[in-house]
Amino acid sequence: MQMQTDKALDALRTALKEIAYCNAAKAALEWDMETGMPVAGSEARAETVAFLAGLAHEKSVAPDYGEALTFLREQAEAGKLSADDSALVALAWRQYDRERRLSGEFVRELSNLTAASHHVWAEARRQSAFGLFRPNLERIVALKREQAQALGGGSAPYDALLDEFEPGARTDALSEVFGRLRRDLSALVRKIQTGDQPPVLPGISLPLDRQVQWNRDFAALLGFDFQAGRLDVSAHPFTMRLHVGDVRITTRYDSADLLYSLMSTAHETGHALYEQGLPAASYGTPVGEAASLGLHESQSRLWENLVARSRPFCDALLERLQGDGHLSGLDAAEFYRSFNRVTPSLIRTEADEVTYNLHICLRFEIERDLIEGRLAVADLPEVWNAKMNEYLGVAVPSDADGVLQDVHWSSGLFGYFPTYALGNIYSAQLFEAARRDLPDLDGLVRRGDFAGLRRWLHDKIHRHGSRYGVEEMMRQAVGDGFQDPAALLDYLERKYGEIYRF
Amino acid sequence: MQMQTDKALDALRTALKEIAYCNAAKAALEWDMETGMPVAGSEARAETVAFLAGLAHEKSVAPDYGEALTFLREQAEAGKLSADDSALVALAWRQYDRERRLSGEFVRELSNLTAASHHVWAEARRQSAFGLFRPNLERIVALKREQAQALGGGSAPYDALLDEFEPGARTDALSEVFGRLRRDLSALVRKIQTGDQPPVLPGISLPLDRQVQWNRDFAALLGFDFQAGRLDVSAHPFTMRLHVGDVRITTRYDSADLLYSLMSTAHETGHALYEQGLPAASYGTPVGEAASLGLHESQSRLWENLVARSRPFCDALLERLQGDGHLSGLDAAEFYRSFNRVTPSLIRTEADEVTYNLHICLRFEIERDLIEGRLAVADLPEVWNAKMNEYLGVAVPSDADGVLQDVHWSSGLFGYFPTYALGNIYSAQLFEAARRDLPDLDGLVRRGDFAGLRRWLHDKIHRHGSRYGVEEMMRQAVGDGFQDPAALLDYLERKYGEIYRF
Repeated sequence: MQMQTDKALDALRTALKEIAYCNAAKAALEWDMETGMPVAGSEARAETVAFLAGLAHEKSVAPDYGEALTFLREQAEAGKLSADDSALVALAWRQYDRERRLSGEFVRELSNLTAASHHVWAEARRQSAFGLFRPNLERIVALKREQAQALGGGSAPYDALLDEFEPGARTDALSEVFGRLRRDLSALVRKIQTGDQPPVLPGISLPLDRQVQWNRDFAALLGFDFQAGRLDVSAHPFTMRLHVGDVRITTRYDSADLLYSLMSTAHETGHALYEQGLPAASYGTPVGEAASLGLHESQSRLWENLVARSRPFCDALLERLQGDGHLSGLDAAEFYRSFNRVTPSLIRTEADEVTYNLHICLRFEIERDLIEGRLAVADLPEVWNAKMNEYLGVAVPSDADGVLQDVHWSSGLFGYFPTYALGNIYSAQLFEAARRDLPDLDGLVRRGDFAGLRRWLHDKIHRHGSRYGVEEMMRQAVGDGFQDPAALLDYLERKYGEIYRF
Repeated sequence: MQMQTDKALDALRTALKEIAYCNAAKAALEWDMETGMPVAGSEARAETVAFLAGLAHEKSVAPDYGEALTFLREQAEAGKLSADDSALVALAWRQYDRERRLSGEFVRELSNLTAASHHVWAEARRQSAFGLFRPNLERIVALKREQAQALGGGSAPYDALLDEFEPGARTDALSEVFGRLRRDLSALVRKIQTGDQPPVLPGISLPLDRQVQWNRDFAALLGFDFQAGRLDVSAHPFTMRLHVGDVRITTRYDSADLLYSLMSTAHETGHALYEQGLPAASYGTPVGEAASLGLHESQSRLWENLVARSRPFCDALLERLQGDGHLSGLDAAEFYRSFNRVTPSLIRTEADEVTYNLHICLRFEIERDLIEGRLAVADLPEVWNAKMNEYLGVAVPSDADGVLQDVHWSSGLFGYFPTYALGNIYSAQLFEAARRDLPDLDGLVRRGDFAGLRRWLHDKIHRHGSRYGVEEMMRQAVGDGFQDPAALLDYLERKYGEIYRF
């Protein structure tokens, strides 16, 4: 029996490795598409990427793969596998089980629909006419409801969709968490709006080649390993891992605003440190992957907000900027206040760290209600605009700047948005715990000495990959209170009370 | 039967397309390896590339692929396929037949040996000690002889190896061609050495970012389509096609020598024009590929030597250089003469257009004799050095600058070198024919108007892909005299007689 088990484990690992090769090749091609592929190559490239995606899928539902996995799952349940092997089998089973519950026909239908819908959404946004996108979105929502039912698992239909991005996340728990965020942050925004307003920060103009050097230095300062990654330019910044030793981040430049690119680089460097810190020995198995999108986002937000927008870091940053001839005469306290201005606005991707979460609360509620059938697609613009007014106090002038602003739904991504706010919640909890464990964290940040913080994050999060679930890792790292927004709310109240002097 | 034929053709096209996707992904990964992959990603990248290569091979020898092809070949022989389909089937059969004649075991053995030998060769070259590389090369030669026997086909064993790179090339014909090249060029070199020596051209120093712009402008001037390609930097310049719409060239820069990068760019642009001009509708089938390596090299040499080193082009180039403040005061005739200096030297890749072919003659003779068992690996350094002295009049001071200089043999590439000289022969024939067809070609070159020459090459060569064999295409393009070195020898005698005034 041991021989049979070893053979099945070998077969599992080989199949997972081949799937990983397909995905690594696909990631490289996608990175290339975003960073410099010649336009005339687009069509053939799309076909090549689709071929690799299909191949990975084919391998992940192959009958002999399923047989090996089924056998190993029985062995694990009978206590005959090591703890590590059991964890591997459980994670692989989780993926396999999701894949096999969806028929090939369904996957193709959804894939064709979302591929066709991207263009429809883009055109609807261009014309700012939700009606153009409505039929596609209705069909997408119908298929996502069908998918939720086929996947099953939770107590609410939306659970199955959340689970894809944030394993174990539950609709009822998130409704409570996001309800509290919404109430407390709406109140905080109102206090901020009547507080002492910091002046607008002047933009820092700098030629692009010098900005590139600033960004490289900045990423390196935070700990990005250029031996195991690169920094490029793309329209929308992203992080892509081809392998633990090849993690690629991008940023975007505005020649009149150096800080714009730097903050984007801080965010992606946070993602990259997680990817560069994953267990290389588990490459190609689900154990070697990040544990959830929420946890991933916590890493980017921690470096972007908790570190790079903190007072000690702003002091150090201003010193460097002034050393380079920028913002001369600006007072450190004023720089910090201006750099952290809060302005309720229409667009999620441009939101500050306070209002950002309200954009997510709104999307969570809408997604949940769409999937649970309590909201019709036809009513989306009205509901969107009403919530924007209620939570953020802004009037939405057009669908383009409202319900049509995000690409996600046209791609069939439901259950993805909540991970952004979960990331913010985790990041505040983690930074609070790191502060307890690391003496004089503010002093270290002020001096640009991030080795201790990186080690702490690596020890608590990165190195485990998906070996443990998010909840267990967070408990080990921060103690009780999984997904409790208290740390985030406390942090924001304190920071913005000081900045807005209330 | 028609239905069965259609089905088999569909199966063939689908399989070829999937193989093409594997190869396109592999090419993208290889391009990335050469242009900027983080070092820590090397190992996983090598595994991913090997996986894709294995997958392509697997698909190319799959039993149902072989069955469809066998059936179609019978249909073609019975005259039941269109001329285009027959050509496709013949080309696919050619590849399939080569693959299936080699056992999986043999392919693995050769692949493992050459993979291991690369490092051994590099170390032997570093130490300039042929003895270190000798055991590996002996094993490689033994396997290549085994391969030649398994492939069969020609009248000489070396024919089968030539055929991989230059379909239809024959050892006896090449022995005659290269024999004549060797005799006539050795004599020409002696005349050149006693002629009126042009002065050495001073290097043009220019910062790298400005050199990059010069190279981009240069490639665009020759006709490189930047919508369907890119220009990057790598240690060894190369051209890589991912697709007709995505052809990538690289060059290398020396901050003290602008012309160094420009000539490399001219060479790769010649390759790229061929790739960008291949029939896009045949993408993914062997019909959509270049017809041979020799023909490919003819395109690069035509632009690098026949165009960019010609008197009218040199006049235009000097004008531009002087407009940019370089080489001021230099006379056009002197620039042309200096730019075309001939210097017998040790290293093939640094050779001028006259002596280059002698380096190839030497390699051809050695390869042929090794494969035919008339030369032992142990005697290589002695034979190499004697031939270098005889053909080029240079004394080889060390194995590193002699028999160990090229990477090819360590990779198992036998039969590849001759295509370089065939490229030179074809390029002279093609340019002579183009001159007949295009009125005032020199004037067009002088004015930088290459549209007519590009159209001519596209019409005669590029657009056909592999639809016709090299011999047929060359006959259509230049008339009789396939592989006749007369045009090349006439061109070189005339040009260098003028430059060296004999």
